[in-house]
Amino acid sequence: MKATVYVTIKQNVLDVQGTAVQGALHSMGFDEVGKVRIGKYLELELDTTDKAEAEARVKAMCEKLLANTVIEDYRYELA
Amino acid sequence: MKATVYVTIKQNVLDVQGTAVQGALHSMGFDEVGKVRIGKYLELELDTTDKAEAEARVKAMCEKLLANTVIEDYRYELA
Repeated sequence: MKATVYVTIKQNVLDVQGTAVQGALHSMGFDEVGKVRIGKYLELELDTTDKAEAEARVKAMCEKLLANTVIEDYRYELA
Repeated sequence: MKATVYVTIKQNVLDVQGTAVQGALHSMGFDEVGKVRIGKYLELELDTTDKAEAEARVKAMCEKLLANTVIEDYRYELA
């Protein structure tokens, strides 16, 4: 089973990396770019076939290691 | 218009960050985790309504700034 995890900065937290990229894009002439937000994208291979169990385990991984839930949101897909 | 960009390390390039996360997950008891690959996830707001033009512009942004095409792949969605 494969899990895809998206970790993003919470909407009300300043995304300094996104702001820096926005500035760089503007300086390169991409003036149409508005807000930029940057997150992480993770692909995990899981040696399990039980989808319910995999979901609980991926949630635990996100809470404990993959996301800093103080400032980040996460979501995941299993396939 | 909103663009979502996914930047991932090419399959034949060693993903050191992914390997480190895999090791950390194993040490925390998540032994079912196999290969881990980590990439970037970007959301860009674009002040344009022309989808074809937006696509060409986002492709140019990826080639010039957002992705290092020597070691990274990218894909994007427009909505």
